[in-house]
Amino acid sequence: MDRRNFIKTAGTGAVAGVAATTLATPAITQSRIPLVIVSSWPRDFPGLGTGAQRLAARIERLTEGRFDVQYFAAGERVGAFDAFDAVASGDAQAYHSADYYWKGKHPGWAYFTSVPFGLTYTEHAAWLNWRDGQQLWDELAAEFGLKCLAPGNTGVQMGGWFNKEINSAEDLKGLKMRIPGLGGDVMAKLGASPVSLPGGQIYENLVSGAIDATEWVGPWNDYFMKFYEAAKYYYYPGMHEPGGPQSFGMNKSWWESLSATDQEIIKAACEAEFLNLMAEFNANNGRYLTKLIDEHGVQLRKFNDDVYDAFGSAAEAVFEETRQHSDLANRIHESFVAARADVGRWMNLSDAAYYAQRNRVLKMAG
Amino acid sequence: MDRRNFIKTAGTGAVAGVAATTLATPAITQSRIPLVIVSSWPRDFPGLGTGAQRLAARIERLTEGRFDVQYFAAGERVGAFDAFDAVASGDAQAYHSADYYWKGKHPGWAYFTSVPFGLTYTEHAAWLNWRDGQQLWDELAAEFGLKCLAPGNTGVQMGGWFNKEINSAEDLKGLKMRIPGLGGDVMAKLGASPVSLPGGQIYENLVSGAIDATEWVGPWNDYFMKFYEAAKYYYYPGMHEPGGPQSFGMNKSWWESLSATDQEIIKAACEAEFLNLMAEFNANNGRYLTKLIDEHGVQLRKFNDDVYDAFGSAAEAVFEETRQHSDLANRIHESFVAARADVGRWMNLSDAAYYAQRNRVLKMAG
Repeated sequence: MDRRNFIKTAGTGAVAGVAATTLATPAITQSRIPLVIVSSWPRDFPGLGTGAQRLAARIERLTEGRFDVQYFAAGERVGAFDAFDAVASGDAQAYHSADYYWKGKHPGWAYFTSVPFGLTYTEHAAWLNWRDGQQLWDELAAEFGLKCLAPGNTGVQMGGWFNKEINSAEDLKGLKMRIPGLGGDVMAKLGASPVSLPGGQIYENLVSGAIDATEWVGPWNDYFMKFYEAAKYYYYPGMHEPGGPQSFGMNKSWWESLSATDQEIIKAACEAEFLNLMAEFNANNGRYLTKLIDEHGVQLRKFNDDVYDAFGSAAEAVFEETRQHSDLANRIHESFVAARADVGRWMNLSDAAYYAQRNRVLKMAG
Repeated sequence: MDRRNFIKTAGTGAVAGVAATTLATPAITQSRIPLVIVSSWPRDFPGLGTGAQRLAARIERLTEGRFDVQYFAAGERVGAFDAFDAVASGDAQAYHSADYYWKGKHPGWAYFTSVPFGLTYTEHAAWLNWRDGQQLWDELAAEFGLKCLAPGNTGVQMGGWFNKEINSAEDLKGLKMRIPGLGGDVMAKLGASPVSLPGGQIYENLVSGAIDATEWVGPWNDYFMKFYEAAKYYYYPGMHEPGGPQSFGMNKSWWESLSATDQEIIKAACEAEFLNLMAEFNANNGRYLTKLIDEHGVQLRKFNDDVYDAFGSAAEAVFEETRQHSDLANRIHESFVAARADVGRWMNLSDAAYYAQRNRVLKMAG
């Protein structure tokens, strides 16, 4: 179908649809709640895109058609990075994005996706649900007329793709790297030049040499981006996005207009997809890492202790600047640090200690 | 209120309630779907009990009263370990329990709570949702007229409470320990005597000396059990329950009688609580560990490599026996091993590698 025919048909269909529903079931049509979702992910992109589309479909099913859900991928209604303004202004009811993209508006946003040396996805859930994470997110979001919930996460991310080996912090100097959020600020402290690009523009910049390195997510997502064509060294563990929750950012007035049940359903759908998307990333990353190595000659590399120590010092300096921004930024930081110390201590004895012993006994590669 | 008065009042209330609804809203009353939930946890017990009660309340809210939800804690309607039979027979519609309690009926059940050297809670979610875990669980459950979903988990568990130090596998010989599931079988291989007791009976057995050691969950849950009064040594990491999902086991005929929307809502509620309860355990374990050490003189100990190697050999022997049971038990085991290798490889590079580096740089205790 060519574009002109598509528009004509779509237009006709829309008009016919409105006419039919107006005549047949006016009461139901009039009471449907508009839910236009604009996202920062390409349509059908595995994980981020499909996860967002799945959330939209789940909300529609759980509410039995009370919502008129319309999902738009990046660029279909607004650009990837215009989602925030579209929702804050009321042009759309919700975005599916990552809140660290808005750190230019307020550095506090970065903490609700991920910050360097930050909370893993599982620690992040503990902070949001059982400490004061969600409360602080609500306070920040309210300043912009929004209400945000976490509708997914990517798991712990890889360190990124480099066109040369990184054997010391010196090797980062002068590097042009796509890395958003405070992770980018850490790289800048170490002499690199961070840039923020939406997913759809990274590949062309890497292949053309406009950037030397990029982080994206992990083996499964990265496989489809074909970064290996321009950068062979794939580093772990990422210091910059150990959590990576997405944000379902809703227009606050719209959210408050919903019934208690509909609010509960959206909350349950987001929590369920947080689990489901985390599970999907973790289920797929292992096998796609194997494909990257076996099919495309990708070289897996581990950041050494010297590089990690440099990341650590730079992260502390970045955090100091963030705290100076405002009282709210400082309170978010303090809350994050307290959660990291308290929950992180437990993760030392549980997840971390268990993986170390199980994987040692079973001689699992890594 | 004494017991006689309570029963009298409750009885009067129930009769009055039925009469009132019959007169006022017969249509709604008649269409309400019965959902009697029997659980294996004491009422209001932090985490396991409150998590189960929260799930029941959430299902009621999300379905806007279409379900007549009645929740019974352990012993209120049936005993902790009678929940399975109550649901399989149709006396109740669902149980909230841990499926490894039924390993005597079929060893495959153990895998859907946790097995030694098994999947962590996050790996377990990947196995259930994105590999063939849920499909195999459905196959096993169908043999008993059930349909099970995972409505929560405890996070990675501690190794347990001991009244002496465990410095080698020799120290386990002759030990009477409360440890259910295949973890108990591992202990038996090493010369200990495992027993299975519901939560409400462990403390009295430990204090009386009927058992020498017990595992339960982690610092938060264990704090309220007061095991420290009889056993001072608290070991980590636990080899026996790295996942610990609970099971919301429903009568299969009842489940199949539900509308697609109601099935979706129960699924979303379970997934949301899986996340929420995991977050609650992880949020609370750190601070309760501190309280156990500071307030009650608990001695934190780490199982050494020799003990872990012995656990590993014993676990392999236990798995061999399990696989001999039946074709289904063997297929469940094979699926679990494949998920552990594949997802576990990724966890090596992500969660495990990140915790190791972050915690080293930040000098986090543990």
